[in-house]
Amino acid sequence: MGVCVFEWRYGSEEMRRILSREHFIEVMKRVEAALLEALVKAGIAPSRALEGLEEALDSVGAEEVYEEEKRIGHDIAALVFLLGRRAGEETSRWLHFGATSYDIVDTAWSLIIDEALDIIMGRLRAVIKRMTDMALKYRDTVMPGRTHGQHATPITLGFKLANYVYELSRSYERLCDARHRLVKAKLGGATGTLAAYGDKGLAVRSEFSKRLGLQPHPISTQVAPRDGLAELAYALAIMASQLDRFAVEVRELSRPEIGELWEERGRSVGSSAMPQKVNPVTAERISGLARVARSLAGVFLENIVLWHERDLTNSSAERYAVPHMLLVADQILIDTLRLLDKLGVDPERMKRNLGATMGTIVSEALLNELIRRGMRREEAYRIVQELSRLAIAESRPLHEVAAEDPRVSELVEADRLKRLLDPEGYLGSYALLIGEALEYSKRALATCRSSGV
Amino acid sequence: MGVCVFEWRYGSEEMRRILSREHFIEVMKRVEAALLEALVKAGIAPSRALEGLEEALDSVGAEEVYEEEKRIGHDIAALVFLLGRRAGEETSRWLHFGATSYDIVDTAWSLIIDEALDIIMGRLRAVIKRMTDMALKYRDTVMPGRTHGQHATPITLGFKLANYVYELSRSYERLCDARHRLVKAKLGGATGTLAAYGDKGLAVRSEFSKRLGLQPHPISTQVAPRDGLAELAYALAIMASQLDRFAVEVRELSRPEIGELWEERGRSVGSSAMPQKVNPVTAERISGLARVARSLAGVFLENIVLWHERDLTNSSAERYAVPHMLLVADQILIDTLRLLDKLGVDPERMKRNLGATMGTIVSEALLNELIRRGMRREEAYRIVQELSRLAIAESRPLHEVAAEDPRVSELVEADRLKRLLDPEGYLGSYALLIGEALEYSKRALATCRSSGV
Amino acid sequence: MGVCVFEWRYGSEEMRRILSREHFIEVMKRVEAALLEALVKAGIAPSRALEGLEEALDSVGAEEVYEEEKRIGHDIAALVFLLGRRAGEETSRWLHFGATSYDIVDTAWSLIIDEALDIIMGRLRAVIKRMTDMALKYRDTVMPGRTHGQHATPITLGFKLANYVYELSRSYERLCDARHRLVKAKLGGATGTLAAYGDKGLAVRSEFSKRLGLQPHPISTQVAPRDGLAELAYALAIMASQLDRFAVEVRELSRPEIGELWEERGRSVGSSAMPQKVNPVTAERISGLARVARSLAGVFLENIVLWHERDLTNSSAERYAVPHMLLVADQILIDTLRLLDKLGVDPERMKRNLGATMGTIVSEALLNELIRRGMRREEAYRIVQELSRLAIAESRPLHEVAAEDPRVSELVEADRLKRLLDPEGYLGSYALLIGEALEYSKRALATCRSSGV
Amino acid sequence: MGVCVFEWRYGSEEMRRILSREHFIEVMKRVEAALLEALVKAGIAPSRALEGLEEALDSVGAEEVYEEEKRIGHDIAALVFLLGRRAGEETSRWLHFGATSYDIVDTAWSLIIDEALDIIMGRLRAVIKRMTDMALKYRDTVMPGRTHGQHATPITLGFKLANYVYELSRSYERLCDARHRLVKAKLGGATGTLAAYGDKGLAVRSEFSKRLGLQPHPISTQVAPRDGLAELAYALAIMASQLDRFAVEVRELSRPEIGELWEERGRSVGSSAMPQKVNPVTAERISGLARVARSLAGVFLENIVLWHERDLTNSSAERYAVPHMLLVADQILIDTLRLLDKLGVDPERMKRNLGATMGTIVSEALLNELIRRGMRREEAYRIVQELSRLAIAESRPLHEVAAEDPRVSELVEADRLKRLLDPEGYLGSYALLIGEALEYSKRALATCRSSGV
Repeated sequence: MGVCVFEWRYGSEEMRRILSREHFIEVMKRVEAALLEALVKAGIAPSRALEGLEEALDSVGAEEVYEEEKRIGHDIAALVFLLGRRAGEETSRWLHFGATSYDIVDTAWSLIIDEALDIIMGRLRAVIKRMTDMALKYRDTVMPGRTHGQHATPITLGFKLANYVYELSRSYERLCDARHRLVKAKLGGATGTLAAYGDKGLAVRSEFSKRLGLQPHPISTQVAPRDGLAELAYALAIMASQLDRFAVEVRELSRPEIGELWEERGRSVGSSAMPQKVNPVTAERISGLARVARSLAGVFLENIVLWHERDLTNSSAERYAVPHMLLVADQILIDTLRLLDKLGVDPERMKRNLGATMGTIVSEALLNELIRRGMRREEAYRIVQELSRLAIAESRPLHEVAAEDPRVSELVEADRLKRLLDPEGYLGSYALLIGEALEYSKRALATCRSSGV
Repeated sequence: MGVCVFEWRYGSEEMRRILSREHFIEVMKRVEAALLEALVKAGIAPSRALEGLEEALDSVGAEEVYEEEKRIGHDIAALVFLLGRRAGEETSRWLHFGATSYDIVDTAWSLIIDEALDIIMGRLRAVIKRMTDMALKYRDTVMPGRTHGQHATPITLGFKLANYVYELSRSYERLCDARHRLVKAKLGGATGTLAAYGDKGLAVRSEFSKRLGLQPHPISTQVAPRDGLAELAYALAIMASQLDRFAVEVRELSRPEIGELWEERGRSVGSSAMPQKVNPVTAERISGLARVARSLAGVFLENIVLWHERDLTNSSAERYAVPHMLLVADQILIDTLRLLDKLGVDPERMKRNLGATMGTIVSEALLNELIRRGMRREEAYRIVQELSRLAIAESRPLHEVAAEDPRVSELVEADRLKRLLDPEGYLGSYALLIGEALEYSKRALATCRSSGV
Repeated sequence: MGVCVFEWRYGSEEMRRILSREHFIEVMKRVEAALLEALVKAGIAPSRALEGLEEALDSVGAEEVYEEEKRIGHDIAALVFLLGRRAGEETSRWLHFGATSYDIVDTAWSLIIDEALDIIMGRLRAVIKRMTDMALKYRDTVMPGRTHGQHATPITLGFKLANYVYELSRSYERLCDARHRLVKAKLGGATGTLAAYGDKGLAVRSEFSKRLGLQPHPISTQVAPRDGLAELAYALAIMASQLDRFAVEVRELSRPEIGELWEERGRSVGSSAMPQKVNPVTAERISGLARVARSLAGVFLENIVLWHERDLTNSSAERYAVPHMLLVADQILIDTLRLLDKLGVDPERMKRNLGATMGTIVSEALLNELIRRGMRREEAYRIVQELSRLAIAESRPLHEVAAEDPRVSELVEADRLKRLLDPEGYLGSYALLIGEALEYSKRALATCRSSGV
Repeated sequence: MGVCVFEWRYGSEEMRRILSREHFIEVMKRVEAALLEALVKAGIAPSRALEGLEEALDSVGAEEVYEEEKRIGHDIAALVFLLGRRAGEETSRWLHFGATSYDIVDTAWSLIIDEALDIIMGRLRAVIKRMTDMALKYRDTVMPGRTHGQHATPITLGFKLANYVYELSRSYERLCDARHRLVKAKLGGATGTLAAYGDKGLAVRSEFSKRLGLQPHPISTQVAPRDGLAELAYALAIMASQLDRFAVEVRELSRPEIGELWEERGRSVGSSAMPQKVNPVTAERISGLARVARSLAGVFLENIVLWHERDLTNSSAERYAVPHMLLVADQILIDTLRLLDKLGVDPERMKRNLGATMGTIVSEALLNELIRRGMRREEAYRIVQELSRLAIAESRPLHEVAAEDPRVSELVEADRLKRLLDPEGYLGSYALLIGEALEYSKRALATCRSSGV
């Protein structure tokens, strides 16, 4: 039944299909076919080499390739051997001609990662879209802004979410950039010189790439440069960390003492010992899996340091790390969408929490007013600190306490104090800033889409 | 057919079995049974609660547990539910009584990791044994010692290997230490207080642990402290890095320009484009997988930082990282054993390489002799450097070149020079040091075994 | 004024002194002296070689060594040259005789790390001591146990702290283990064979080590095996993560909505914009610096993979990572002590928070009682879940709500319900478990101290 | 004398200046000034608030700020206080008005990082330029291409270097992208809403940014999003790993058994024990420091996960990691330039090494020819493998051995075989590919420069 949780528990079926051993063989068949066609087009192989190809491609299955690999110890060689045997001698002669395994493998990875990024970037767009909608819906829902875990100044839930929209849109840009540099065809032969094709090397490479809908790397060693995978791994690790940040947001705000956001219960049994609890398990899974995403990035950095025209060390490491990196990103995005779907919001509780610190959450407004009225910053600071502590100690609104202090009341009248210290009135340019964030996001998503990576 | 290479390509069948979902269920059943027995022994549950147990344990299979989990969303709850339904009402009532899921999960992990470490430490012993044998066999096989990739002073292959024996024995010690701190029973209930058992908590825990052959953690939150897993992960990552170092040794020394060690070809096809090559693919795989081992360690450090009496973030991360960490260590050890099995050694080539630097590899011996004869260190240093370069530039033995230099010849006679500059004579205490290393290793392996962790 | 915060902001003066360039020179002088003395003792160098030594050691200062290094590009060579010049020809001849730089450097690191660990382990003992005292002081101070950030079952503050005592004592053990394997003398010459000393190598090494109060590595390449530093780095990273966990504990429990623990304000200005806030800045610094500790560990894993008898890559990496790793651990411990010193505790608030969930925090007690009284687990679970939600929805104590439910009241009388659902009565074996943890800690600290590492 | 090697040993003076505490204060003064000017422009502060400013900026020095910080425990508050006191009451009142510390700190970091990237990207351009020149100079210098450390097919040194040109140009692109997303002004106040400025928030922010020559983040919490620093850290870690790859190239090819490239000796003392060695110490330092660069990246990933509108944990971690990340990149680039400056090249040795494998390095050419002449791939593969081994075993050129084999000779005449198996003739499209790589690089460097980041 398996040892890896990504076989059944985490990751979508569609992502698993894309990253499956079967699909890998399917894609490599396409790549071998594109190469053979390019060889014919360039006049290196005769056109009759294509004759049995179609049929052979259809008939060779992943399972027999892996069976054959067990015998000869090399997966690409097994594939080429089987295709050749099935297609007949003439095809066999020209199949894989002049190529090295990683011409096929790296190009296949590009195609597979391209498919996987369609899913991942699609899900990221959906997350951004959902958060954008919520940012508009809760644009004016006031809640405590928190720094150091303490109440700072008020914000709105929409403002909070618009920050995530901005941050995640930056991740979208990074994924576009990484995809652009990574998803390329690679053809170069054993050490990258296209040696087997005489003076027709660039023509073969160009045709090969075109048929697969890819741009080729302008140069390579035996393999495409590994920085591309490292860049993708980090773009995904950064995205995972941002979603971890959102998950922490929900986990924190769903504490019973806070209760502003929470994860609605589904049909699942909560804790086996404590029936009363409603645990933010989806958010917790996001946080847990983000650690996995962070850890995987290191593998790809070390893989860059290959010897000379390449050594094989990247192979085992990537067989492992590429699928897991994409699956973990997939699951984190799925969980984020699920979390957003069932996110409970309690605007009343937010309001109540806002009030719990007796208006000191807007003490900054008083500080600034005192300064504006001519008080020196440090004196104002001392007074406001003193009054804030008093308000909290006596559980009385700050505006009342302040109104009783002659140092304040001689500068600011009680009415003004009350308005000034109304949390809902101290929100600055929040609405415009939400607009700016959403506008940025719109541009970011549009630019990458249109760039047709 | 799967997405994770550890399902088919890397890791042994026996390790996969130990880490399979089925085995996890089997072990958790044992743990639930031990708890129920402990409850009866402590007089909390009636003895008839045990009646249907045996049969239920036999009849509930992993597959149905995972089916049930899909329905209720919680694997332990699914197991307990099915066992209870199968065993009858009285058993059902007392099964899992007072426990939290992680009482079962953490204890099951301990038992599983214990099994896995039997394999891993067994393989490590085998690696150490093999290297020890080779250290003795090649005790006197002289070869260049290399620092900075340059020839330094001569060593023997046995001396080189004895260093690995020492280093790996230190890893064995670390695995013993980690196992000792990690493989423990955990029983504490929801927040660790054993609240459900009134004043019988310690008695239940003690009986529970004894039945499973484990020592209990003296205290815990809802979970065992996570530093134990982190320690194991690092012990394994260090071991993997040491074996990576050995793999690099082989990869380097099998360069065609060096040719001292190599990986014998087996039945596998080498490169698909270059039939003449004999590539150190096993060693390269070790180096590649060592990166995976290093990367996984980070997950466990972050997992230590759980909130309060625990949050769930460790769960997803460990479901992923625990099996992969053990499987990658397993494969690295398997590959190292394979590599040692088919390691080719060319003592002749070692000798030839030794001579290739014209005896300058023992220039240190001349330096020291000049000092001993009264020359000042710096002057001696300058002269030896000069003569070494001359010897290499003119491709003549250093002892000849030195004999012609009056600054040298007035202090050391030609015969003495020749003996002095014979690489095979400048090996210091290598044999005794090999003995010290092997002695250390013997003690290290014996100590841990007898400690009966 | 400097670029590295550890020069002025983080780390203690005494740790900075131990890790300073000056001290490094001082320690290396001691090591060179021990070597010369060992050479004389072994009869390799004449006893008059010691004559000028003492004076030379006194007169050569760090600054001139670094000046000389600028000229010749090698720090150890500079030191040896200056000592030799100052001590006279005969000493000069025998100083550093047969040694390689890393005989001196690695042994010096051992001595320096030993000093540093005295401080670090001393501070860790102090942290454990303080937490132990607090665990006893607050042994019976009831508070909510929390899992998933939600209320789980009650614990006491002492119980919470005793868990940290246990966890940190395990770190203490790990530091002992790491120190034992790392702090050793290293003497082997260029490739570890002690080649320059003929058949007197082991005698020289033994005397050298004895004079420095160290055990020697039984064998080595040009350098001591790097797994020792990696082990220490991880022991420190694990400790840092545990203290991060404690810092998170404080940061969370000092949220204004919770208010159970907090960091007393000192003389510092809080936020520059918000005078009312009392931010847990010490705890936050611990969490921030723990990331640094975690990141440094990776450097040491890669350093293990040296080529052959060593390459130089570990050198630059360790010059950087060793001092920073020790300084960051130092600061984290200093901050933890400071945090403990000024930790505010509000037992009243804990009690109030306990009550805030209407007794559902002990719903498990009701669940277990219903089971004991004969109800089936699942039915009991459903009922308790239902009643818990009702209690919270109606803001009424769970015991009242439960008493009104005939399914409950027919099994448990109202009085029993009230007692059962009193949070302060559902603490299980907390006191005994605290005892067990403290006992463990005592043994762990005693064992390592007496082992005289 | 200090504990951190970046204070004296690694990193340039100019980079140290940019990252010094003094410069940090200088830049923050500029930022505070820009804010005050923006407040006046927006009509929030009166223009007389600017009166004493210039003078105060000139007179307040870093040292007194840090003195003051010791007193009040907050560096920004200390700066603001001193500036205010020096400038007079009216300025004091409006300085820093409505701002939070990180408005200043984050914007200052942007300006400092911008300066630092000028240096780093300038050095990277210089490295690329130097490698480009060498790629052209050695365009036709034939040498063995190596995969798995074994000879693969021939390449030229220029071709090898052109691959690095391509790879490093991709890093240049990534640095451009990262800079673009990171180097921005941040102004938002305590929780990002610009609350203190009423409806003038965006106007203040716009003016503030313009004066500093920056674009503002469209939205923020109390801090700019941390993904920008993480992206930079990874771009630098990737670059460091690529340069590590180049360093490994040099270290390997300077082995005495290979001798194709080497690091010319400068004035430095080599090994203290072995005068004959010429060690690739600059390249080794690059490899060592690349580990540091890789390790630092992890810190920034964790820093993304801040609580709510921010917590303080990023502060200590960044005070440490930002300067070190920039300094380590600086030193790696400096060392690479130095390494390129003193890189010895031995075309003769390359040619000799090419021949050492008896022409089997171009066995692929024979394989392909046999296929072209009608042989089946597998048969051809077997024959070529067999002949290659024979050639090596008998130390005879492959073309001779092949000519004697009737299976070959009946298809390919001896003359053709000789030409076919001439390593210098099997270089494919290397020259065109070098051209493509250089063309790509040119475009990449031009695009970013013109984008005026």
